[in-house]
Amino acid sequence: MPRDLHLNLFINSRGHHEAAWRHPGATPRALTDIRYYQDLARAAEAAAFDSIFFADHLALGDEAAHVAKGQLEPITTLAAVAGATTHIGLIATASTSYTEPFNLARQFASIDHISGGRVGWNIVTTWLPEAGRNFGEAKQTPHAERYAQADDFLDVVKKLWDSWADDAVLDDREGGRFADPARIRRFDHQGPHYQVAGPLNLPRGPQGRPVLVQAGSSDTGRGFAARHAEAVFTAHLEKQAAQGFHADLKARARAIGRDPSQILVLPGISPVIAGTEAEAQRLQRELNELTDPAVGLARLSARFGGHDFSHLSLDQVLRVEDFPDPATVQAAQSRAAVITALVARERPTLRALLHSLSGARGHFSLAGTPEQVAAVIEDWFTTGAADGFNVMPPVLPALFDAFVAEVVPILRRRGLFRQGYSGTTLRDHLGLRRPDSQFFPATGIAAAA
Amino acid sequence: MPRDLHLNLFINSRGHHEAAWRHPGATPRALTDIRYYQDLARAAEAAAFDSIFFADHLALGDEAAHVAKGQLEPITTLAAVAGATTHIGLIATASTSYTEPFNLARQFASIDHISGGRVGWNIVTTWLPEAGRNFGEAKQTPHAERYAQADDFLDVVKKLWDSWADDAVLDDREGGRFADPARIRRFDHQGPHYQVAGPLNLPRGPQGRPVLVQAGSSDTGRGFAARHAEAVFTAHLEKQAAQGFHADLKARARAIGRDPSQILVLPGISPVIAGTEAEAQRLQRELNELTDPAVGLARLSARFGGHDFSHLSLDQVLRVEDFPDPATVQAAQSRAAVITALVARERPTLRALLHSLSGARGHFSLAGTPEQVAAVIEDWFTTGAADGFNVMPPVLPALFDAFVAEVVPILRRRGLFRQGYSGTTLRDHLGLRRPDSQFFPATGIAAAA
Repeated sequence: MPRDLHLNLFINSRGHHEAAWRHPGATPRALTDIRYYQDLARAAEAAAFDSIFFADHLALGDEAAHVAKGQLEPITTLAAVAGATTHIGLIATASTSYTEPFNLARQFASIDHISGGRVGWNIVTTWLPEAGRNFGEAKQTPHAERYAQADDFLDVVKKLWDSWADDAVLDDREGGRFADPARIRRFDHQGPHYQVAGPLNLPRGPQGRPVLVQAGSSDTGRGFAARHAEAVFTAHLEKQAAQGFHADLKARARAIGRDPSQILVLPGISPVIAGTEAEAQRLQRELNELTDPAVGLARLSARFGGHDFSHLSLDQVLRVEDFPDPATVQAAQSRAAVITALVARERPTLRALLHSLSGARGHFSLAGTPEQVAAVIEDWFTTGAADGFNVMPPVLPALFDAFVAEVVPILRRRGLFRQGYSGTTLRDHLGLRRPDSQFFPATGIAAAA
Repeated sequence: MPRDLHLNLFINSRGHHEAAWRHPGATPRALTDIRYYQDLARAAEAAAFDSIFFADHLALGDEAAHVAKGQLEPITTLAAVAGATTHIGLIATASTSYTEPFNLARQFASIDHISGGRVGWNIVTTWLPEAGRNFGEAKQTPHAERYAQADDFLDVVKKLWDSWADDAVLDDREGGRFADPARIRRFDHQGPHYQVAGPLNLPRGPQGRPVLVQAGSSDTGRGFAARHAEAVFTAHLEKQAAQGFHADLKARARAIGRDPSQILVLPGISPVIAGTEAEAQRLQRELNELTDPAVGLARLSARFGGHDFSHLSLDQVLRVEDFPDPATVQAAQSRAAVITALVARERPTLRALLHSLSGARGHFSLAGTPEQVAAVIEDWFTTGAADGFNVMPPVLPALFDAFVAEVVPILRRRGLFRQGYSGTTLRDHLGLRRPDSQFFPATGIAAAA
């Protein structure tokens, strides 16, 4: 059976390009207007996308003067988008560092019920120091310790999601028995970071557990993904690196006894699409010229743990020696490594690097015709670089509309992408199995019932 | 100008009576079906109620075998109900003890945007020991300390909601200025319990701050309400006690310089309504006979901090000496005091007490005709016992439908209750002023603009 290509719409600000918010193709709506997100979700659903996704940052940062910031909180947004849609998956980021596992497990389970089994959780450990300052942390927790805490967090939330058997609710009005207490489990988790009694105060959701998504790509992050993730968002600027990541992640999953088909690798792709390549390039330049170099420089500095690049001039050709060693960066290490690899490969000027990063914050940007974009997608998909893509339109909604109108039909003609939904849950769309409860495994009899 | 009567629909399980879920008048839907809550919200909006309200408990408790438990999480439910409604206020409980102020402030602000200014937060400090066990607490925090922490929590969330001036977002696409950084405030709160830098990562909501609701009625709880609350849910079994509470709360607010019209007192009322008084009494008995005495006894014990009542027989006449002193109860002290006062006044049997409490967990229950219910509401409202009511239908939706169809028209004929909405926000409905930001007070010029 041929694999299905998976497509996720990543909704960020008015598009993923740093200057998108200023572009005429961007939405006229405020970032606090739920109709903007509902309209995008409906458009993605009409195109039979697997899911939409909202990233998250637990601090405003310093960019709001020149970049559109302050969008709605992701979990409440998912709940509000659920009612405006019927099939599309709904994924949001939430942090294991700054949320109680009981609260997080419960809100995601609640949205799984509200949406009829469409929720996914993008697990992040949060590396921004300014986020810590909004949660009483005087200093940042080291990279490895954040992941150890996240492992314990995952143990807890899986127990919470598994704490009601699927058949725990009897609702026997005549007999006066609402639930079967033998099918609801208090588990008294005593972990290194969390002590949680359980059970959850909500029956098990339609999907059993939310689809678990992850995006850490460092060695520690990959190990975590191999243990827990069912879909992985990742950033690669070239196919070979994506192939290596894809193979590595599947191998790591296999090595610990998981079925590699149950962990999907979805690289980011941020396509500027136009009728001709020259037009696409012009649109790309138009966007780049709307950027503010100070914003780009500050973002680059943040990627390298606050490293100071201010002595470099914009037209200077960069060398790898201008950057600190990515392994020393207590932030998103893999993203830093992608940038130094690009510098080594292409020797760009600082201005060119900033423009290239302004497209989609280090994700794969390209400018071309619908045919060219579809060709890249097919190539990566058929040569072991991707199980699908995290589509990051540079400008929303214009460049998402172009993707749906021009690229999706090509993918369908080539038999790569579905015509419509065949299932109703996010697990259905992604081809992911519904997990059994660890406390109430399905027996042969129960599974047949 | 005559005051407006305010009506809130308190949505709990399939009704507030302990046995409601078994009754034919209860919804056939699961407690995890969002349509159940959306339908109730639409019915309340059609009747021009001020708001709907979801309470919350951070643990399942031991009752699920015999009582319908496990409803959706309140915050995600509010967000999902927002899209199904246009005017009605949306209030949910959230705990200051087990949530990070940044996360709570942000989710409520987000729902305020999503709903166009209709959100309210019912502040609870959470007294259930089993809740603590879901959040890593080995033992319960004492009553007074919970309120001290809540005061610090309120300081933080108010600063977060005030951290963007109402005009901070410029969205100047031509000039490349998204927000005015001088109108967004980092405040670096250093309190006894919380250290939060700010600003919030979301612009100020339509209401400025959510409407702040509270229900603590002990001396400490009243002081907290006088400082922070704009609406107070409260439980009284007789008018005189409600009058005393109403007068006390207004006096406390006035004493600290607040306008008493800006703190509304809304006692709970749980009416069993039928065409004749005899029919209503029969319906009440029908519900009581569906209860399980073991559930009632366990609830009574919990109200008194786990006190053991198992040596009492169901038909024994109770004395005040059978109960521990409410002042020693590390739980909802005021609710315990209401119960001992009832015992002193009425000398019920244990069975009769349990039946009376099964109606609405210690709130004011009555059984009567629509005229009788309307008369009580008018009486309490016009004699200083209430600014409105927290309507707690014993069975949902049947006894809410009866309230809307039979009681609301009487209240309208008497000029007590609105025919329809005149404003769009919850603050509009409740007659509450929109608070200025503490960091960006409105100047005469700004206010006139």
